Amino acid sequence: MQICSPELNNRLKIGNTNKIDYGLGGYDVTLSIFALGGINEIGKNMYVVQYEDDIFVIDCGGKFPDESLLGIDLIIPEMTYLEENREKIRGLIVTHGHEDHIGGVPYFFKKLNAPVYATDFTLGLIELKLSEHKLLRGTELNKINSDSELDFGKIKVSFFKVSHSIPDCLGIVLHTPEGAVVHTGDFKFDLTPANDEQSEIHKMARIGTEGVMALLSESTNAERTGLTPSERMVASHLEEAFMKAEGKIFVSTFASNVNRVQQVVEAAIKTDRKLALLGRSMVNVVDVAIERGYLNVPEGMLIQPNVVDQLDPHKVAILCTGSQGEPMAALSRLSTGNYRDVSIYPGDTVIMAASPIPGNEKDVSKIIDNLFKLGAKVIYGTGSTTGMHVSGHGYQEDLKLMLTLMKPKYFIPIHGEYRMLYHHRLLAESVGVEKGNTFIVKNGDIVDIENGEARQTRNIPAGDTYVDGVSVGDVGEIVLRDRKQLSEDGMLVIVLTLSKAERKIISGPDTISRGFVFVKNSEDLMRDVNNLVTKTVTELQEDNVHRWNVIKQGIKKAVGQHIFQKTRRRPMILPIIIEI
Amino acid sequence: MQICSPELNNRLKIGNTNKIDYGLGGYDVTLSIFALGGINEIGKNMYVVQYEDDIFVIDCGGKFPDESLLGIDLIIPEMTYLEENREKIRGLIVTHGHEDHIGGVPYFFKKLNAPVYATDFTLGLIELKLSEHKLLRGTELNKINSDSELDFGKIKVSFFKVSHSIPDCLGIVLHTPEGAVVHTGDFKFDLTPANDEQSEIHKMARIGTEGVMALLSESTNAERTGLTPSERMVASHLEEAFMKAEGKIFVSTFASNVNRVQQVVEAAIKTDRKLALLGRSMVNVVDVAIERGYLNVPEGMLIQPNVVDQLDPHKVAILCTGSQGEPMAALSRLSTGNYRDVSIYPGDTVIMAASPIPGNEKDVSKIIDNLFKLGAKVIYGTGSTTGMHVSGHGYQEDLKLMLTLMKPKYFIPIHGEYRMLYHHRLLAESVGVEKGNTFIVKNGDIVDIENGEARQTRNIPAGDTYVDGVSVGDVGEIVLRDRKQLSEDGMLVIVLTLSKAERKIISGPDTISRGFVFVKNSEDLMRDVNNLVTKTVTELQEDNVHRWNVIKQGIKKAVGQHIFQKTRRRPMILPIIIEI
Repeated sequence: MQICSPELNNRLKIGNTNKIDYGLGGYDVTLSIFALGGINEIGKNMYVVQYEDDIFVIDCGGKFPDESLLGIDLIIPEMTYLEENREKIRGLIVTHGHEDHIGGVPYFFKKLNAPVYATDFTLGLIELKLSEHKLLRGTELNKINSDSELDFGKIKVSFFKVSHSIPDCLGIVLHTPEGAVVHTGDFKFDLTPANDEQSEIHKMARIGTEGVMALLSESTNAERTGLTPSERMVASHLEEAFMKAEGKIFVSTFASNVNRVQQVVEAAIKTDRKLALLGRSMVNVVDVAIERGYLNVPEGMLIQPNVVDQLDPHKVAILCTGSQGEPMAALSRLSTGNYRDVSIYPGDTVIMAASPIPGNEKDVSKIIDNLFKLGAKVIYGTGSTTGMHVSGHGYQEDLKLMLTLMKPKYFIPIHGEYRMLYHHRLLAESVGVEKGNTFIVKNGDIVDIENGEARQTRNIPAGDTYVDGVSVGDVGEIVLRDRKQLSEDGMLVIVLTLSKAERKIISGPDTISRGFVFVKNSEDLMRDVNNLVTKTVTELQEDNVHRWNVIKQGIKKAVGQHIFQKTRRRPMILPIIIEI
Repeated sequence: MQICSPELNNRLKIGNTNKIDYGLGGYDVTLSIFALGGINEIGKNMYVVQYEDDIFVIDCGGKFPDESLLGIDLIIPEMTYLEENREKIRGLIVTHGHEDHIGGVPYFFKKLNAPVYATDFTLGLIELKLSEHKLLRGTELNKINSDSELDFGKIKVSFFKVSHSIPDCLGIVLHTPEGAVVHTGDFKFDLTPANDEQSEIHKMARIGTEGVMALLSESTNAERTGLTPSERMVASHLEEAFMKAEGKIFVSTFASNVNRVQQVVEAAIKTDRKLALLGRSMVNVVDVAIERGYLNVPEGMLIQPNVVDQLDPHKVAILCTGSQGEPMAALSRLSTGNYRDVSIYPGDTVIMAASPIPGNEKDVSKIIDNLFKLGAKVIYGTGSTTGMHVSGHGYQEDLKLMLTLMKPKYFIPIHGEYRMLYHHRLLAESVGVEKGNTFIVKNGDIVDIENGEARQTRNIPAGDTYVDGVSVGDVGEIVLRDRKQLSEDGMLVIVLTLSKAERKIISGPDTISRGFVFVKNSEDLMRDVNNLVTKTVTELQEDNVHRWNVIKQGIKKAVGQHIFQKTRRRPMILPIIIEI
C-alpha cells in the first residue's frame, strides 16, 4: 500500500467513516457538492466537494468546441469560484487520464495551485501536458493507487479501482463528517478487462455497506440497455481480422486506449507483423505507457514510419490516430494520400477501432469513403460479429450495479447530457434510491448536505471558458451570435499581402465570399476579380500610391463594377491588405 | 390503366422490349446512362438516360448544405449538360416526392423545360414547389401511375410500384433498342405497408424475365444487414404510446411520410384525440394528401393550433415538423417554449417518429434534452421494442431481392456514398451479377452501352450548384476554402452604420471577433470597445471629419490600443462602416 498525504501519519481507518467523531456539532457542519463542468454536456468534467474550508477538486477536463465556435481550440470550465477561494483548495484529484478529465489541467495551473493526486499512468499523461505548457516545474504531483489513503484532517480520501477504456482509473471516496461522498469516475464493469485490472467490486461493496451519503456517478450510457460488452470481444475480432488480412493493416483508435493498443500489439505478434506508430499523440502516449509498464511491446517490434514501405506489406501493422475524422490526424491524411512516409495501397486493411463520438459521424464517414476509394478493405461499425469497438462507459445494467453496490442516500448523476441524467435517475429509483433524493443539477448548482439532509438552493458561476491558442478567456454569447450573423450577411473579402520593402504583392489576392453566392461560372469570376485586384494594386504601386485606404478604394471600385456587370449584384466588398 | 404520352396511340407492348425491331443497326446505337447528382452523396438525385438524341431525366433533387457552406440554402445538380442539349430533353420523370428527388425541380424550370411525368401525389408536391416559385404556369405536368406506358418513338417507358416512406412511388423501365434500363427509385420491400400499397413484385419479376440490360438501384442502406422492418411496426408502437399517454401527445415526423401521418391519425382516433398540425410543410403536405385521397382524416378531427390549450390535454394530439432538429421548425421552438399557440407542459408526451439523418444527431439531441427539461416524456430511438421509426430504404436483403428479381446484365449502384455503392456491388455479385459488370461511377461519368456491351470512358461536368435565396450559381471550392481559412485567421470586425444625412451613428457599433478570443471579462471589453468606437466616431463627426477611411483609422487606433493594453494581443481590426 502506498500512502501520499499532507499528514502521512494520520491515516484514516476505512470502515468507520460515519462513526468517526470529528468533534463537529450538527448544524455547523456544511458539506457542499457541485460541478464546474460535465453536467448537461459530454466533456470538461470538473467536480468540487467542499467541507467547510476544505475544497477538493475532482478532475479538470477540456471539451472540443463544435463548428459554431469558429477559431476556438478548447473549452475548459470557468474557475471563478476556485480563484476566489484559492487558499482553500486542498487538492486536485484526477480519476483518469482522458482529455475530458485532464484537458484543463494546464489552465488550472496557470491561475491556481494545488497538489495533484493521480495514478501513475494518469500522472504520466498530465506530465506530458504540463511539460508542453512549461508548467511542470513547481507543480506538486503525487502518485497514488487504489489502495492509497489521504488524510486532510477532517476529510479523509480513499479510492477504488474501476474498469474503463484507459488504464489506471479510480473512483474516489471522500470521508467527511457528514458521511461518505463517492465519485465513480468513468467506469464499466468489465469482468474480463484486457489488462486484467478488474474493478474492485468487493471494495465497492464494503464502501456501500459502510454507508454512502452521496453518490456522483457517470451517466454517459444511461440510455443504453443491457451491460457493456467486454473489451475482450474486440481482442477476438482484431485477431480474426489480422489473420485474414493480406496487405498492410492499419488500426485507428484512441491513443489513450492502451488496452486496445495492447491487443493490437498481441494480434501483430501472433501474425508476425512489425508495428509502426503514426500521429503525435499515439507516439507520446505509447511512450508513456511502455515507460511506466502499462504496455508490453517486445523489443525490436516497433519500427519507424519511413521503413514501412520497405517491408513486405503482410509483415507490418500500423497504429494511427484520427479515429474521429480529425482532418489533420494521421488517418485523414492517409485516406487522401497525403501522409509523407506511408501510403495505403489496394488490398491493405484499415480497422476503425473506435466509434465516432456524436458530431463526428460525417467526418468519419468521409474518411471511410476515401479509404474504400483507395481500394482498402475497411472494417468499421460496432456490430457484435465484427465490432472493433466497445464502449468504456457502463450501460444501464452497469450503472444499476454501481448504484446497488453503493446504496447511496442521495444521488447526483454526473457526466452527461440532460437526457442521460434523467434516465440515470430512473435507474437509481429502480434500484432503491428514494424518490426526491436524486439531484439533477446544472453546472454551478450546489447540493448542500447538513445534518444528513440534502438540499439544492444555491449556485455559483460555472460557464464555459474558451481557449484559443495560448490565450484563455471568456467570449460572450453576444460575440458568437454576431459572428454567426455576419457570416450569413453576405460580403466579399479580398485579402492580399504587400511587401512594404519591395512595394509589391507577395501573396494573394484571395477572394472570400460570405453568404454571397456568385452566379454561374464563379471560378472564372474569381479569377477575373483576382486579376483585377492584382492589376489595380500594381498600377497604384507603379503610380507611387502606397496608402492602404487608397488601394482599398481602388479595389472596391474595380471589383464592385466588375461584379455588378457580371452578376447584377452588389455584395459588400471588404478588401484586407496585410503589409509585412 | 391511364396513358399519358406525346404519342398516345403508339402504345408499347410490354413483354417484348428486347424483341421489338426499332429498325436500328448494331453499332450505330448508343445508349448512355449517367448521374448528374446522387452518387457519392445522399441528396440531389438526378439521373439521365440518353438514347441517341432522346434525353430522359429521372428526378431533380436538392441537398441541404453542411455547416461549412455558410449562407448556402440548397445544393442542386449542375445542369450544364442539359442546358447544352436542351432541345433533346423528352421528359423529366420523377420517381417520388422527397426533397432529394424534387427539391431542384423549380431550378430546372428556371433554365430548362420538359414535360414532367409523375404520380398524383408526387405531382401535388411538385405543384406546391412550382407555385411557390411562380413557375406553375407554362409547365406541362403529366399524371401517370404504375400502369402507365409512355411512347417516345424509339424509347418506351413503363413503371412499377415500389414501397417507400412516401406514397405513390415508382420504379421506371426505359425500353430502348439496346435493352431495358431499370431505375428502382427509392424502395424497400414492405410486405405489410401502412397504406396497403404493396410493391409490384410480380411485375418486377416479369421485367426481369424479359431481360434487363442495366439496373440502377438505390444504395442508401447497403451497409445494413437483414431486411428493413415493416412500417406496421411503428403502428403498434404508436398505438401503445397513445394508450399510455396522459397529457398532450406531440408526434414529430417528416410531413411527407403520409403513411406514418395516417398511423398517427389512426392512433388519435382510437384514443379519442383531436389533431392539430404545426409547421408550414406539415400543413401543406397534409392538405395535398387529404385533397388527393392519400390521407384519410375524419371530418372535424383537425383543429387549429390556437385551440389546443382550450382542450383537455388528453383529448389532443399534435403533429409537428422539426424531427431533424431544424432550429426554426415547430419542434425546436416548442422545446424552448417559443411556439406562439402551443406549449409543452410536464406530463405531455413527445414522440420522435423519425431518425436523425447523419449530421443532425447533435441538433436532435439538444431538442430531446430541452424536452426532458420541460418535463415531457420523450420517446425516441429506433429499438425494436419502442422504435417509432423504420427506414424507407431497403437493407441488404431488400437490395438483393431487387437484384434477384431484375437479373440485370449490368449494374450501376446509385443513391449513396461511395462505401454504400461499394457494398451494393458486393451484394450484386453475391446474387449473380458478373464481376466486372458493376459500374461504380461518379456524378458525370457516362456508362455507354453499345451492341450489348457497356463501358465507362467518358464524362461530363456534374458538380454542385449552390442556391442562396433567389440566386442560383456556382461557388468554386477555392471560395469555400478561403472562406473557412479567414474564419480561423483571427480578426476583429467592428460594424457601424452612419446616417449620411444626419452625420451620426444609427446602428452599432457591433463588434465581431473571428478566431480572436478575448481574455476574461470579454463582455466588459466588448462594451469598452463599443463605447470607444462610439466616442471616437462621434468626436470625429463633431470635428467635421466624415471620410470613412479617416474614421476607420481612428477606430483602429483607439480600439487597437485599448485591446493591447487589456489583453496584450493585437488582432487584426477591421472596421466596417455602412453609410445609408
